[in-house]
Amino acid sequence: MTTNPADLSATEAARRIDAGSLRPEALMEACLDRIAAREDTVRAFVHLDPALARAAAARPLSGVLAGLPVGVKDVLDTADQPSQYGSPIWHGYQPKADAYAVAATRRAGGVVLGKTVTTEFATRQPGPTTNPHNPAHTPGGSSSGSAAGVAAGFFPLAFGTQTAGSILRPAAYCGITGFKPSHGLIHRAGMKVMSESLDTIGVFGRAAADCALFASALTGLDLGDVPQATGAAPRIALCLGAGADSLTGETKALLDDVAAACSRAGAKVTRIDLPAALQAAQDAHPMMMHGESAQSLAWERASHRQQISEVLNERLDWAEAQPATTLVAARATIAQARNAFQDLMADYDILLTASAPGEAPEGIEWTGDPICNAVWTALQGPCISLPAGTGPAGLPLGVQLVAPFGADKALLGWAWWVEAVVAYGA
Amino acid sequence: MTTNPADLSATEAARRIDAGSLRPEALMEACLDRIAAREDTVRAFVHLDPALARAAAARPLSGVLAGLPVGVKDVLDTADQPSQYGSPIWHGYQPKADAYAVAATRRAGGVVLGKTVTTEFATRQPGPTTNPHNPAHTPGGSSSGSAAGVAAGFFPLAFGTQTAGSILRPAAYCGITGFKPSHGLIHRAGMKVMSESLDTIGVFGRAAADCALFASALTGLDLGDVPQATGAAPRIALCLGAGADSLTGETKALLDDVAAACSRAGAKVTRIDLPAALQAAQDAHPMMMHGESAQSLAWERASHRQQISEVLNERLDWAEAQPATTLVAARATIAQARNAFQDLMADYDILLTASAPGEAPEGIEWTGDPICNAVWTALQGPCISLPAGTGPAGLPLGVQLVAPFGADKALLGWAWWVEAVVAYGA
Repeated sequence: MTTNPADLSATEAARRIDAGSLRPEALMEACLDRIAAREDTVRAFVHLDPALARAAAARPLSGVLAGLPVGVKDVLDTADQPSQYGSPIWHGYQPKADAYAVAATRRAGGVVLGKTVTTEFATRQPGPTTNPHNPAHTPGGSSSGSAAGVAAGFFPLAFGTQTAGSILRPAAYCGITGFKPSHGLIHRAGMKVMSESLDTIGVFGRAAADCALFASALTGLDLGDVPQATGAAPRIALCLGAGADSLTGETKALLDDVAAACSRAGAKVTRIDLPAALQAAQDAHPMMMHGESAQSLAWERASHRQQISEVLNERLDWAEAQPATTLVAARATIAQARNAFQDLMADYDILLTASAPGEAPEGIEWTGDPICNAVWTALQGPCISLPAGTGPAGLPLGVQLVAPFGADKALLGWAWWVEAVVAYGA
Repeated sequence: MTTNPADLSATEAARRIDAGSLRPEALMEACLDRIAAREDTVRAFVHLDPALARAAAARPLSGVLAGLPVGVKDVLDTADQPSQYGSPIWHGYQPKADAYAVAATRRAGGVVLGKTVTTEFATRQPGPTTNPHNPAHTPGGSSSGSAAGVAAGFFPLAFGTQTAGSILRPAAYCGITGFKPSHGLIHRAGMKVMSESLDTIGVFGRAAADCALFASALTGLDLGDVPQATGAAPRIALCLGAGADSLTGETKALLDDVAAACSRAGAKVTRIDLPAALQAAQDAHPMMMHGESAQSLAWERASHRQQISEVLNERLDWAEAQPATTLVAARATIAQARNAFQDLMADYDILLTASAPGEAPEGIEWTGDPICNAVWTALQGPCISLPAGTGPAGLPLGVQLVAPFGADKALLGWAWWVEAVVAYGA
């Protein structure tokens, strides 16, 4: 039985396109067919123009992403499609330019398929997207449409952005791979940035190698030479993290199982508690996030406050009610934690922790809790969520791997290693 | 003889407005009169709508900037005036929203007077602005119109942005005060960001207290309580910097004179060479600046390359021809230099160096050399240029004070101290 092209990993689709056994137009049609069949339920798109996508796939394409359809989270601008940023304030807005991330995708031969649903300004207020594994459950957020779309076979690659847990959590809930690179690795020109210190552009795929392929294309770096030296195995710090008390039993069991499998495969696994400096960073994260986001939305709040959700106004009002020195202090606390994490990770290659407390919550009025992700985002290093089994409701679970700032290639390499251990055991 | 309101410092104008002895409308008319008299020669504005400015000044205004006209560099968006970013590619573009910096100005009662000339995307290719002290000379750049406008009495406050020396150098050339805060202190939402690691929003005024007033209004921080404890004097590191070989004789003499005056006033002055780690950061700065700028302009370069100046295309082509690892290495080199500078400055309160090699060069086809500024921008700490005499051509000279990241209030306080020493001797 042949795999539907819509379900191929990005690396396999790229291989077939390069070999001439799959045409970009055929891949695009397979994706559009899948969208036609499932978008009514999944609701991943805020803007989709099939004719525009077909025309883009029919052009001569070259580069490592040649012919691969890409979903673009609607906080990244495109010159040919509207941006809404998940907010009625921006309804109908047509940007003049492509974001860097989009321009770089096109330059590498990638095909922008459409704009995907984001929560309001990539914060809490959800959009209409459902979890492709069960429409009664959230896909997670804020990168809801991108994660759901990769899981549903709408596109093999997609953009996410993360301020707390907006890539890692939906990746876990949707059973796909989500990679947040080191802060600043992908330029944010043309992104609706909320928190300058936290917001990071990242990618979704169907395996670590997909994320490495996409991130390499965007950065020009070789992040894709993933297999480590034969026989090598990572030094792993196993840490339940700031969300330890929120983890479901199946998540704790999953972490133990993955750690045990890694250990059997040769990894040295050491169980650690979250260091105090990192807990302090977790505690400082809301001030940094909401304080900087309130600044970012100063115009919207002054001119269109009634069109902002109550939950967002409340959080930004809270931030603005704090003395301005609190934001400065939060930045200092988090800067100290970055140094502490660099020191800690001198003894480990990767840190293994939960991607989310458990399966995707029921209902789509809440995208779930980023408590397992915020501190790692604050630390500005790379992190990745890998699919790892299912929970009692039959929904996907994921595990998160974290590395220090700048260790993007190493993290992707060890992710490939852990992925193989999870898939085949040891 | 009474001072023309157009020539008042921002702090004095704010005091009079608060006391009821100066009406915002009268201040605006004085500024518009001055503009009518001199704009044909100075050419500070890329967009000016006097009716819009008058209407803004006539509204009820409250806040610490109430009634103060502000010039906005045309890399910061305004919802009511077009943005061009110094590039024909963006000619006629009307942003939907105010930048954070602009929204915060309005919230504090400031009145946006107009959009000021920037070089092309805040890089090298100059605009038409001339130096108010002599139209045969450059005002410096890239914040050309903002610096010239403050010097000419068009507005008491203005926004600049700095990637290498785009605030400090024009401040020195125009005989005004230019303050670049710590990186990230003023949110860049709504700015045309080129280098994410370097671009910093800052301010121009007619004294350190003006800059403190404006920066306090924008950040909510109290940066304005400038006088240090009576009798205190700073520990000063005197450093010729990376531009040592480029400094004119009068600039070296000026630094010696200022250092001697500070010493007589009680400062402990220590002459230091530029540490090797900082020289390495200076050397890495072009790669960071051009590498990140090439990413920022990916859409413009792909779609409108012919409308980009030859000099800019050349620099960005150079950056794109480097291996992508070079940009990563430049960031690592500069991160090391930041740590080295923090360590160095444990022994000093401020570093005293040149703002520019000398007076503003003749001609307006070149905005001068940022060699005295690039490394301090890379270090991400605050720096300020204070007017300090004139050179042989009768044009202004300035001195630069630098402090470590986060020491914005301390730097402004010591700037006030040095300003008094320069003005009154010791």
